[in-house]
Amino acid sequence: MFDKIKIFSPATVANVGCGYDVLGFALDGIGEEMEVSKRNDGKLVIDEIIGFDLPKDPLVNTATVAAQALLDAAGSKQGFSFTIKKTINPGSGMGTSASSSAGGVFALNELLGRPFTPSQLVEFAMEGEKAVSKKAHADNVAPNLLGGFTLVRSYDPLDILTLPVPEELYVTVVHPQVEVKTTDAKKILKKQVDLSVAVQQWGNVGGLVSGLYESDYDLIGRSMVDVIVEPIRKILIPLYDDVKAKALEEGALGCSIAGSGPSIFAFSKGEETALKIKNMMQVKYDEVGILAYTYMSKIGKEGVRII
Amino acid sequence: MFDKIKIFSPATVANVGCGYDVLGFALDGIGEEMEVSKRNDGKLVIDEIIGFDLPKDPLVNTATVAAQALLDAAGSKQGFSFTIKKTINPGSGMGTSASSSAGGVFALNELLGRPFTPSQLVEFAMEGEKAVSKKAHADNVAPNLLGGFTLVRSYDPLDILTLPVPEELYVTVVHPQVEVKTTDAKKILKKQVDLSVAVQQWGNVGGLVSGLYESDYDLIGRSMVDVIVEPIRKILIPLYDDVKAKALEEGALGCSIAGSGPSIFAFSKGEETALKIKNMMQVKYDEVGILAYTYMSKIGKEGVRII
Repeated sequence: MFDKIKIFSPATVANVGCGYDVLGFALDGIGEEMEVSKRNDGKLVIDEIIGFDLPKDPLVNTATVAAQALLDAAGSKQGFSFTIKKTINPGSGMGTSASSSAGGVFALNELLGRPFTPSQLVEFAMEGEKAVSKKAHADNVAPNLLGGFTLVRSYDPLDILTLPVPEELYVTVVHPQVEVKTTDAKKILKKQVDLSVAVQQWGNVGGLVSGLYESDYDLIGRSMVDVIVEPIRKILIPLYDDVKAKALEEGALGCSIAGSGPSIFAFSKGEETALKIKNMMQVKYDEVGILAYTYMSKIGKEGVRII
Repeated sequence: MFDKIKIFSPATVANVGCGYDVLGFALDGIGEEMEVSKRNDGKLVIDEIIGFDLPKDPLVNTATVAAQALLDAAGSKQGFSFTIKKTINPGSGMGTSASSSAGGVFALNELLGRPFTPSQLVEFAMEGEKAVSKKAHADNVAPNLLGGFTLVRSYDPLDILTLPVPEELYVTVVHPQVEVKTTDAKKILKKQVDLSVAVQQWGNVGGLVSGLYESDYDLIGRSMVDVIVEPIRKILIPLYDDVKAKALEEGALGCSIAGSGPSIFAFSKGEETALKIKNMMQVKYDEVGILAYTYMSKIGKEGVRII
């Protein structure tokens, strides 16, 4: 057993168009790093957060909140120090809080000799999510811990499936620097939806899952239709319709809101199209003077890992 | 080209638990037969319906209504005579009107030298469905014409996917002889559903599709949860909760309402369990003096076909 570990925890995108609250996937090589080491005083301490000014209070930071849930379940009084190096601005919709939640529990599980399965780690990481968004979501921490595409079939009991990752599937994400809080993005959603509209949504969820199994890129794109959440949330995202239309025009399979926004993501078949869309997204926001960060990667087959 | 053809058109089960209005599958060897022959007077005529007293008016019977839609699309003035041998009582929820709609267009397409693809035939058969249930449903005619499991991803544009059929998946159906009209069964559904409940439903749709690809029988069963339609419609079906509980107790993977009912279907892994459940279902209704018919088969990989 080691006393110290360094891990990489990927950014993730939840919802994936039609799959509000159930679907998510990990990015490849884009995310945060975390160094965790044992300490002898039984405390959880965040030594440093590099990159952004985020709370170091262990009762607030998702890494330590989730870590505490794991320690409670293990009945362990072991203390740990954390250094977190973030690369994505908070509030992006790219699961940065989940990256810390999942990273924290993954690191502790390794340092404690792997007492828990990845599925159990999801439950601890959900406690970190609860700390920031009131509800214990799994749609970001699941792809983070299990890699690839995940489907939260059920929360009660928790039942998470991993889905296949088509080889040539690339994702492009743009994060315009406007603030959309997850809690606000939840608030504006209607509590009720028309049954006929819900039927369309689950037709698309079924289609997307089938598309992933078949590596049918066209079907994946056709199924990324969100008739429930996107029409409401997109009003919070400047240039949304414009960026989406242009992405599809340039060959994106589909385009939707990453998590609760404001990031927008597009799927492409192959790196060339994905890069073209990345440039286009950057230019669109540059033109109107909104600072925006863009990212491009394959789907991250592997989730959080030791580096 | 032939002047006469005899076909078998399977019974089908739509909804499949979670997949209201989008999922459906065909039974194997259970359904109706139809003889169709060319006639020279340009008319569509139903010579005989064997088994049940159903309308022979070509403007009312789904076989001829659907057949007319095909002829219109083909610009053909060819006439046809139909003899239909039905084996399942109408109003069962096992897609008997769809069997005729699909059977009619399949037979004509063969006799006309296959001018249309199976997907096009689905659209014509939907016209037959429209004649009986006001809306042009595809969730029964799709598995009927394409075989196996089908998913109607979208109605506009029509996009139907075929899904894999696990080798050992068996279905048992019981049709208690109580009348539930599709139009009534639609009427009692709420027009709006809670978003949180809809999320559960599409989590299960995704799970069921994954289960079919993985031949994961347990996942198929876990995913057959219908939190929207079943709680409302089951009140129209005598003994529903009792039969379902007993089916699960005897090893069914899952159990739900066939189409809009009143038939109840259960999935099992293997024939032995499916037969045990068939007997149980029969006994349950016999005990209370409700006439009921029971059926058991594999999932019908092949849809409507020449015999």
